[in-house]
Amino acid sequence: MKTFALAAAAALSLTYSASAETLVMQSVYPSSLPLLGDSGINLTKQVEALTNGELKIEFNEPGAIVGGNEMWDAISTGAVDAGWYSPGFAQGIIPSAAIFTAVPFGPDIRAYTAWWYYGGGKEVWADITAKYNIHTELCAILVPEASGWFAKEINKPEDLKGVKMRIFGLGAAVMGKLGVEAQSMPVADTMTGLRLGTIDAAEVSFPLIDKAVGMNEYAKHYYFPGWHQQTSLITFIANQDVWDGLSEQQRTVIQTACQANVAMTAAEGEAKQLQPLEDLKAAGVQVHQWNDEMMGAFSKAWDEVAAEQAAADPDFKRAWESLSNFRATFKTWSDLAYLK
Amino acid sequence: MKTFALAAAAALSLTYSASAETLVMQSVYPSSLPLLGDSGINLTKQVEALTNGELKIEFNEPGAIVGGNEMWDAISTGAVDAGWYSPGFAQGIIPSAAIFTAVPFGPDIRAYTAWWYYGGGKEVWADITAKYNIHTELCAILVPEASGWFAKEINKPEDLKGVKMRIFGLGAAVMGKLGVEAQSMPVADTMTGLRLGTIDAAEVSFPLIDKAVGMNEYAKHYYFPGWHQQTSLITFIANQDVWDGLSEQQRTVIQTACQANVAMTAAEGEAKQLQPLEDLKAAGVQVHQWNDEMMGAFSKAWDEVAAEQAAADPDFKRAWESLSNFRATFKTWSDLAYLK
Repeated sequence: MKTFALAAAAALSLTYSASAETLVMQSVYPSSLPLLGDSGINLTKQVEALTNGELKIEFNEPGAIVGGNEMWDAISTGAVDAGWYSPGFAQGIIPSAAIFTAVPFGPDIRAYTAWWYYGGGKEVWADITAKYNIHTELCAILVPEASGWFAKEINKPEDLKGVKMRIFGLGAAVMGKLGVEAQSMPVADTMTGLRLGTIDAAEVSFPLIDKAVGMNEYAKHYYFPGWHQQTSLITFIANQDVWDGLSEQQRTVIQTACQANVAMTAAEGEAKQLQPLEDLKAAGVQVHQWNDEMMGAFSKAWDEVAAEQAAADPDFKRAWESLSNFRATFKTWSDLAYLK
Repeated sequence: MKTFALAAAAALSLTYSASAETLVMQSVYPSSLPLLGDSGINLTKQVEALTNGELKIEFNEPGAIVGGNEMWDAISTGAVDAGWYSPGFAQGIIPSAAIFTAVPFGPDIRAYTAWWYYGGGKEVWADITAKYNIHTELCAILVPEASGWFAKEINKPEDLKGVKMRIFGLGAAVMGKLGVEAQSMPVADTMTGLRLGTIDAAEVSFPLIDKAVGMNEYAKHYYFPGWHQQTSLITFIANQDVWDGLSEQQRTVIQTACQANVAMTAAEGEAKQLQPLEDLKAAGVQVHQWNDEMMGAFSKAWDEVAAEQAAADPDFKRAWESLSNFRATFKTWSDLAYLK
């Protein structure tokens, strides 16, 4: 090891710094949720450790500063510095945002990260969001969700008609096509809804989280695969002026910590599903895989939804085409290279 | 944004530091090789940027300080601080090292990183290598290789008998079972060998690199999938005393930069294969997929090799069982969760 003593400031180490900066961040996920929330806490710890406390990110629970639906605007104006956020929450403002969170029959982590980092994805999103004065870093990525919990078995598309279901994002539009009364609601209300029978079905997340929140107490039929959400993205977003005001080193710290978080959340997500899945089975949950007829119905309905959304919104069309074109070429490579 | 001025050292920023440290690192891959080598350069840049030059890693090309086969010992004794290294290069010293670089019919990036970070993989490797006084960080991960380049078409197992092939690691032992005369040689010698006809076949890497080194000039039959190397690992290794001598912040910087490198090399590897593959086809290369009979023969031979290696070496047995057990449980989750 070579050690060079520099002339200036010989007595000081990185432990001492001129000033410490703190970014105020609000999360859309409670810190108590594995992967969705605790990965945001991990980011704050990493940034602090990497800078020896020079830069801190303050984690605020959902709603602590502004409501979840106000977060995008609050960060856009600078009322809040930053967010632990999935773009899909801005879907009401930016319809294409859904493509940057969870795409039905969408890419897995492999194809999605390839598109985001090296296939044009992040550039398309940056362009779409430029006018909102918000900077985005992909900062966590999640393994597939389950398709959801149902009070009754679903064996054919007709069985879905009239089912009242809690479901998020583009998956809700697909379910709507099949006669489901899709509803948006927080996780806490989901369990109450199932218990009281005001809803008959709900998708929440993957086994690790579904078990943690006790979904098995409210429904017994657990369906896979989660065609509506094969990958879910979590991003660190910041007001553009706040981001630009950071030093180059500070921006590198956040970017690198976010990339590291992507690797670690992917690995943790894959590693930690089996035990909760086995526990759920032991608790009497019936695990089902959708039959071919159901998968065909979901897929056909999604094609219709995607076409409608692309026709209605130019940014959706642009993002969807970028992702679809990337996936078409990726498939040639993937089919050739991977063991079946 | 909140800015707090700290009492001490008010005039100094992170730009100025007491001392800068440089770790001397030698690579087993030339910096000119995409992903294999340039990802090592990326690590050095990231570490420098994250610490504002406080910590540097000096990248040395293969052989610049010691020969490739001497690297493990040189880092073990502290003659060299660190290495940009694939554990498989230490296979002659540590037979189980192969399991930490490329496993025939082995896991893909998803399953491998899950095992390494959260399934016991890194702990097994740390335990096996403890007596060598070397610390390891997983620092880059590569998409599947091609199976290799052949002068002639291979349609049935008998076609392999007597073929002289450049192939690395455990894949070489498998090919040996099928009558191939497997040889280990540097990439540069590989092309000469093919041109002069002293070898008939060679595996080097994936299309991005195979095209960069011009493999198509020497053989026309290009086979997939690379069953011998579905994932390849690159690690940052350091002499344990050097590692322990770093500050906690410096260790965090290297670990985080390595995790970020894992996410980025995986994404880059997936994104950058198709164009070179198309270019190779346009240059007259015939791209083949092994037929079922060939894949069956490779798989059967690998089962024999794995059993022999496990019987011969307790550490190989331990690492192989840890990986195999993880994969068995992972498969239950993966089969359920992913779209077919």
